[in-house]
Amino acid sequence: MKFDEAYSGNVFIAAHPHYEDAEVVIYGMPMDFTVSYRPGSRFGPKKIREVSIGLEEYSPYLNRELKEVKYFDAGDIPLPFGNPERSVEMIGDYVRKILNDGKFPLGLGGEHLVAWPIIQEVYKKYPDLVVIHMDAHTDLRTDYEGEPYSHATPIRKVVELMGGKNVYQFGIRSGLKEEFEFAKEYMNFYPFEVLEPLKKVLPTIKNRPAYITIDIDVLDPAFAPGTGTLESGGISSKEMLAVIHEIANSGIKVVGADIVEVAPVYDPADQTAILASKMVREILLGWTQNQ
Amino acid sequence: MKFDEAYSGNVFIAAHPHYEDAEVVIYGMPMDFTVSYRPGSRFGPKKIREVSIGLEEYSPYLNRELKEVKYFDAGDIPLPFGNPERSVEMIGDYVRKILNDGKFPLGLGGEHLVAWPIIQEVYKKYPDLVVIHMDAHTDLRTDYEGEPYSHATPIRKVVELMGGKNVYQFGIRSGLKEEFEFAKEYMNFYPFEVLEPLKKVLPTIKNRPAYITIDIDVLDPAFAPGTGTLESGGISSKEMLAVIHEIANSGIKVVGADIVEVAPVYDPADQTAILASKMVREILLGWTQNQ
Amino acid sequence: MKFDEAYSGNVFIAAHPHYEDAEVVIYGMPMDFTVSYRPGSRFGPKKIREVSIGLEEYSPYLNRELKEVKYFDAGDIPLPFGNPERSVEMIGDYVRKILNDGKFPLGLGGEHLVAWPIIQEVYKKYPDLVVIHMDAHTDLRTDYEGEPYSHATPIRKVVELMGGKNVYQFGIRSGLKEEFEFAKEYMNFYPFEVLEPLKKVLPTIKNRPAYITIDIDVLDPAFAPGTGTLESGGISSKEMLAVIHEIANSGIKVVGADIVEVAPVYDPADQTAILASKMVREILLGWTQNQ
Amino acid sequence: MKFDEAYSGNVFIAAHPHYEDAEVVIYGMPMDFTVSYRPGSRFGPKKIREVSIGLEEYSPYLNRELKEVKYFDAGDIPLPFGNPERSVEMIGDYVRKILNDGKFPLGLGGEHLVAWPIIQEVYKKYPDLVVIHMDAHTDLRTDYEGEPYSHATPIRKVVELMGGKNVYQFGIRSGLKEEFEFAKEYMNFYPFEVLEPLKKVLPTIKNRPAYITIDIDVLDPAFAPGTGTLESGGISSKEMLAVIHEIANSGIKVVGADIVEVAPVYDPADQTAILASKMVREILLGWTQNQ
Amino acid sequence: MKFDEAYSGNVFIAAHPHYEDAEVVIYGMPMDFTVSYRPGSRFGPKKIREVSIGLEEYSPYLNRELKEVKYFDAGDIPLPFGNPERSVEMIGDYVRKILNDGKFPLGLGGEHLVAWPIIQEVYKKYPDLVVIHMDAHTDLRTDYEGEPYSHATPIRKVVELMGGKNVYQFGIRSGLKEEFEFAKEYMNFYPFEVLEPLKKVLPTIKNRPAYITIDIDVLDPAFAPGTGTLESGGISSKEMLAVIHEIANSGIKVVGADIVEVAPVYDPADQTAILASKMVREILLGWTQNQ
Amino acid sequence: MKFDEAYSGNVFIAAHPHYEDAEVVIYGMPMDFTVSYRPGSRFGPKKIREVSIGLEEYSPYLNRELKEVKYFDAGDIPLPFGNPERSVEMIGDYVRKILNDGKFPLGLGGEHLVAWPIIQEVYKKYPDLVVIHMDAHTDLRTDYEGEPYSHATPIRKVVELMGGKNVYQFGIRSGLKEEFEFAKEYMNFYPFEVLEPLKKVLPTIKNRPAYITIDIDVLDPAFAPGTGTLESGGISSKEMLAVIHEIANSGIKVVGADIVEVAPVYDPADQTAILASKMVREILLGWTQNQ
Repeated sequence: MKFDEAYSGNVFIAAHPHYEDAEVVIYGMPMDFTVSYRPGSRFGPKKIREVSIGLEEYSPYLNRELKEVKYFDAGDIPLPFGNPERSVEMIGDYVRKILNDGKFPLGLGGEHLVAWPIIQEVYKKYPDLVVIHMDAHTDLRTDYEGEPYSHATPIRKVVELMGGKNVYQFGIRSGLKEEFEFAKEYMNFYPFEVLEPLKKVLPTIKNRPAYITIDIDVLDPAFAPGTGTLESGGISSKEMLAVIHEIANSGIKVVGADIVEVAPVYDPADQTAILASKMVREILLGWTQNQ
Repeated sequence: MKFDEAYSGNVFIAAHPHYEDAEVVIYGMPMDFTVSYRPGSRFGPKKIREVSIGLEEYSPYLNRELKEVKYFDAGDIPLPFGNPERSVEMIGDYVRKILNDGKFPLGLGGEHLVAWPIIQEVYKKYPDLVVIHMDAHTDLRTDYEGEPYSHATPIRKVVELMGGKNVYQFGIRSGLKEEFEFAKEYMNFYPFEVLEPLKKVLPTIKNRPAYITIDIDVLDPAFAPGTGTLESGGISSKEMLAVIHEIANSGIKVVGADIVEVAPVYDPADQTAILASKMVREILLGWTQNQ
Repeated sequence: MKFDEAYSGNVFIAAHPHYEDAEVVIYGMPMDFTVSYRPGSRFGPKKIREVSIGLEEYSPYLNRELKEVKYFDAGDIPLPFGNPERSVEMIGDYVRKILNDGKFPLGLGGEHLVAWPIIQEVYKKYPDLVVIHMDAHTDLRTDYEGEPYSHATPIRKVVELMGGKNVYQFGIRSGLKEEFEFAKEYMNFYPFEVLEPLKKVLPTIKNRPAYITIDIDVLDPAFAPGTGTLESGGISSKEMLAVIHEIANSGIKVVGADIVEVAPVYDPADQTAILASKMVREILLGWTQNQ
Repeated sequence: MKFDEAYSGNVFIAAHPHYEDAEVVIYGMPMDFTVSYRPGSRFGPKKIREVSIGLEEYSPYLNRELKEVKYFDAGDIPLPFGNPERSVEMIGDYVRKILNDGKFPLGLGGEHLVAWPIIQEVYKKYPDLVVIHMDAHTDLRTDYEGEPYSHATPIRKVVELMGGKNVYQFGIRSGLKEEFEFAKEYMNFYPFEVLEPLKKVLPTIKNRPAYITIDIDVLDPAFAPGTGTLESGGISSKEMLAVIHEIANSGIKVVGADIVEVAPVYDPADQTAILASKMVREILLGWTQNQ
Repeated sequence: MKFDEAYSGNVFIAAHPHYEDAEVVIYGMPMDFTVSYRPGSRFGPKKIREVSIGLEEYSPYLNRELKEVKYFDAGDIPLPFGNPERSVEMIGDYVRKILNDGKFPLGLGGEHLVAWPIIQEVYKKYPDLVVIHMDAHTDLRTDYEGEPYSHATPIRKVVELMGGKNVYQFGIRSGLKEEFEFAKEYMNFYPFEVLEPLKKVLPTIKNRPAYITIDIDVLDPAFAPGTGTLESGGISSKEMLAVIHEIANSGIKVVGADIVEVAPVYDPADQTAILASKMVREILLGWTQNQ
Repeated sequence: MKFDEAYSGNVFIAAHPHYEDAEVVIYGMPMDFTVSYRPGSRFGPKKIREVSIGLEEYSPYLNRELKEVKYFDAGDIPLPFGNPERSVEMIGDYVRKILNDGKFPLGLGGEHLVAWPIIQEVYKKYPDLVVIHMDAHTDLRTDYEGEPYSHATPIRKVVELMGGKNVYQFGIRSGLKEEFEFAKEYMNFYPFEVLEPLKKVLPTIKNRPAYITIDIDVLDPAFAPGTGTLESGGISSKEMLAVIHEIANSGIKVVGADIVEVAPVYDPADQTAILASKMVREILLGWTQNQ
């Protein structure tokens, strides 16, 4: 890991050129090796950066500008193709360093399995951590056809690590019956919807550090076709933005976040990557200041 | 017709392998010969089956699993290309056999003309039948540029057969002035919207058998771009799912259904076929049990 | 300019064949030379006409038919590629002639810069003019990287010409901080939403002539992916239609209108062009009669 | 049929505005009802016209300009959707009129079945007719799954009409064994290749009138992906142009021609339609002058 | 492994329904976990089967019909996503059984790493084996960024197993300098071209069993855009077919074959899958009879 | 101009990090303002860099590696959108500096007009300059519909500047009759073909400095669909590579080069950009060493 070196590819618009004095680190995790359906999210981080050139640096929603936040774009972690076990280790090492340096990790996936090593590290630093998970899928399997490292398992691992009562799921609308029953019994589970239940939850977790992981497929395929596993019946982009702003204005202390599963090859007009890049801007301006 | 033979192509996920003891029969009607605009719905049934592999077998909306229903996927009827008259006959014969065997016909189109022979057969069996038609278009023409067999005429034929007061139209937002006037005068006509008027209608038809025909273009092009004739201003996929669940929970007796006009070639991210395959799952779990 | 000659390409469906006795003139402005991001809107007018063949001639929303309005489709103005200055002049000359002949100009873009020469001419004729601007972007820059002729500047020029208090902006959700501050201070500014604020504004401008310019990107990318600069968080096609009908029923006197920034190459299922062609129909039937 | 009326849609570039004094008539046949695989060629003629705007009017191959030929573009015949029998009749009537008026018919398909009524009419006028057929497929079936009107049968019908020894096939690389045996025995059959065998054939038919029908799939899918039934192993666009020029320079008397099976929806970069429009130009300049 | 069970998905056209008496077994290897660039070849086998419906069952090149060969389509091996090590084992087990049963294994990839376990098994059975490798890339790395299981390594492993002088490479045009030097020194290496050098090689290996592995990217991107790693300057589809026929007519004894790296998501007109399905037909008719 | 600053976007693979000691400078010209047909080449340079990541650093054709050449990637010149006049000036200034610093300019377009300011500067430095122009189009117009700055005019300007006998055109197959006559009379004109005539020309210009400008549309659309103006009948990618190698091995002294008109939006599988990036590699290794 060489955070002090300039990344040679595209960076997110208006990124700060140095790691040392940055408050936030954007990093990509080009991993899609364990997905069971359509691969391609390895190119998500690159595309989100590429289309960020079309973003204005001002958020009219938050009345803030990107120059008010120092964020460094570290580029993509060079994960070994086809080796999820080693990839998970590398992501953990990477995030540990960011956290140790007192910076806010803002990760871009890649498949959702990447959230597992991240949350392990964040939890080590913040033992009273709350995890907020927005997704179409439960991701609560113990394994996927025998494989423990799978895009279908990360949240189950998180629950086993830190207890289901510290994990809040929103927008879920697909999974096994067992997963739904598990979620209802052991977790804070708000299927189908996001904004309305979130408004009720936020005041109850005000004093705790929160890590937020967003699978882009929590949105309806109309708003985010560029992902591996489309699930009809999701939320709109307007609601997604309102969710980010609700959290920003709630006063909870967000200590890290990720957006995963953007897969550009299924996104002919780039609308999914463009939405994700706008979400990154709003997160930079709305969540990273609370630390 | 050889229902006892295994279909050699893809089948809908988790389909029952035998016709004999199935309660429901899924069948495709690969016909798009009479469409006036963009053809391609002949590949709709194949694509809906293909993407069904990405579906979970559990519906969290209905809290049921596909294994609770025995449905056989009979594949596509081998309709003769370019011969709508003979195709209509073959579909009628096909559905008659399904109905005679006491099974629920769940058809996949193909253009909307396929609904005409189906409803003829269902009406023969259930003389007190109600037809629920969700669509962007009235489909109420007497002919289309001189051709009586056309994707623009099936519901007119249905009205002539069984009386307009037994036909309920929802979501309509395109047609000739004459068609709208006809619908308002002779039918139960609820243009533009689906869920709200349906909630009012359902209690009034509780004791009658209902056939439900859904043109995928009742959805807005944002949610269902993969169809021949896009008509802006439609409903969302969330509303479509709510409609299916409203019917499922209404207590009406659904005796058959179809989903038509899915045209994969205009659906670059497969989102329309994926939505349709989810609708098939919800229909299997929500409607076919009431018989 | 030869309005008396038949245009040799496609025309909007059911267009009147002669200029002389037409009440409305549809004209295309195939210009995308100054866009800073994705070009391609030069093909917007052609595509809107092409897909108009799929439109019904009847509007069930307004209960009117296209035959009730005489509109001539003048084709595209032959703008010189790469010369925005001369193009702006040509558009101004063109619209002046339409206005002098007492006809309603209904323009199809092309990039938004085309609105500048149009509004200049309309304002000359109607000194008490009100401009209604629906867009994702403020378009309020004084220049764009030094260039005064830019797709980012037209509304600023309009404000300088006729005063910001005569300009109403709706749906804006992207721009510089300075632009938002300018809009809030000097204009009638309704960011993020369209229909609700419009309902409040319309009664207050009832007695004044209004020119309405609609950038298709006021819609969310889910509903209008085919445009140069996607901005997530926009309105739906249903809301857009409701907006047109609200204006139609408000009694204000619309004296000209345009729809700009449709870029077919980013629109794989033609959904954006199809929406725009439906908007043209509703505008023809709803706005052009009030003169 | 109203040849004296201006067609309201796009016309082929530089077309002559009147039927009466035209030497050549371009006409479209938007028919794809009987195809067994991917439909969509109904939009072929429209697209070929649309992209013709990108053509130069000069052929450097033939050193001639389009202004040297008077060709009228009659638009598309309004064929009834889904009725191949009536469509075949209408095409026959149409071509008969063109021939009676002493003009060269240059048809654009649509599926290959359209060649059948055309050749019937041409044969009536020229009893010593030779047919040159370039295609990937034999099109020699007697019927297709029971349907006599099929895109797989036209050349068989032609052979039955005028004798196989008057029909020359080139480039064929797909069909039933029976079809290949039939062709070898009863026709002039040159499978796989076009230019080399054609060079040998042309001198032998110098004194006879020739009708030439070209299925765009005679080209390799690399050069013509936009067609219904791709067949790998075809000729290149360079060879196709050389073939047209070889015929032009051979001194044979071409009395009519068609290009069929261009299907724009499978042609993401428009390369197939652009090739076809160039072929039309070369045919106009190379073949229609020999009459 | 359950070869005696019917595969529930699509099968290659005209496949024999039973494993037991089949001479050839078609099997898919849906693996793309180790690719370094664009994933997606996991869907290659499914797509090749799907488009095979458009194939004629007769080869005019070989004058044979598919009914002359009994081939069973075993479907795809259910490889564990993201676990290349276990996948390689499973493929090996699978192929061993096919070979033990005296059948010809015809594999469909998937990434090229799948060739490694196959060739290991074939070599066990045929110790005097010759491997013919057609590809744009050398695939001769010892590892890829530290990973021994990689799509860039299979042929290196083969060389280490059975000696480079028993391996023949054709069409190679991309790799490390070290790989090219290795190939020139230790193997039979024919870069850039395929047909001409192959004609010279075939007579020299007449008496030996040959396994043939074809990476679809040996073709130029014009002919095979649907693959992960495009490399310009390749052969044409006509040459590819000629290569298959040259081998078929050479009298060498082919004992197994595969076609790998077809990735449908980059293949908008399906031309790559259609070419591959034609290659499968020609291989079935030309190579599997020599055993 | 700040050549000493790191470019913040993607760079061509293995580019040298500093301008000062580089022998070659790659620079992009994101300009497509004057094109008369499909715009989009402004994104060409970015895409060529992006896909260069898939290139091997070794050329087996030339047996050289990229590390043998020091090339700096200066990114794109920030051209003002919609202002071709100022853009032409900026490009001229840019190239003059590169030439003054004794480096080889390797430009990426953008539309072909960019070649005009480049060649002006190169000619100032090398008064005995020869220009080699490969293209489908003559680009010899004096103006385009009145505009002197147009993608259709650059080579005419070059001829006026330095005399037609110093300009060699290859592969041309489209233009006005006047342009072809002009080229034949005043220039060295080799229409339709490239490699064969080039072989004859190269020995005759051995002792003179040469600037080489390649419009990607000299290739057939099958090999390069991703460009604005497709012209069927072009050369293959194999021939294009052979052309580069022929020049490399000819001993002529190349003093600058460009590749223009790559337009990614028409290139669904990225094949055109991938070909262009391979051409860049071969040019770097084959042409820049002769200075």
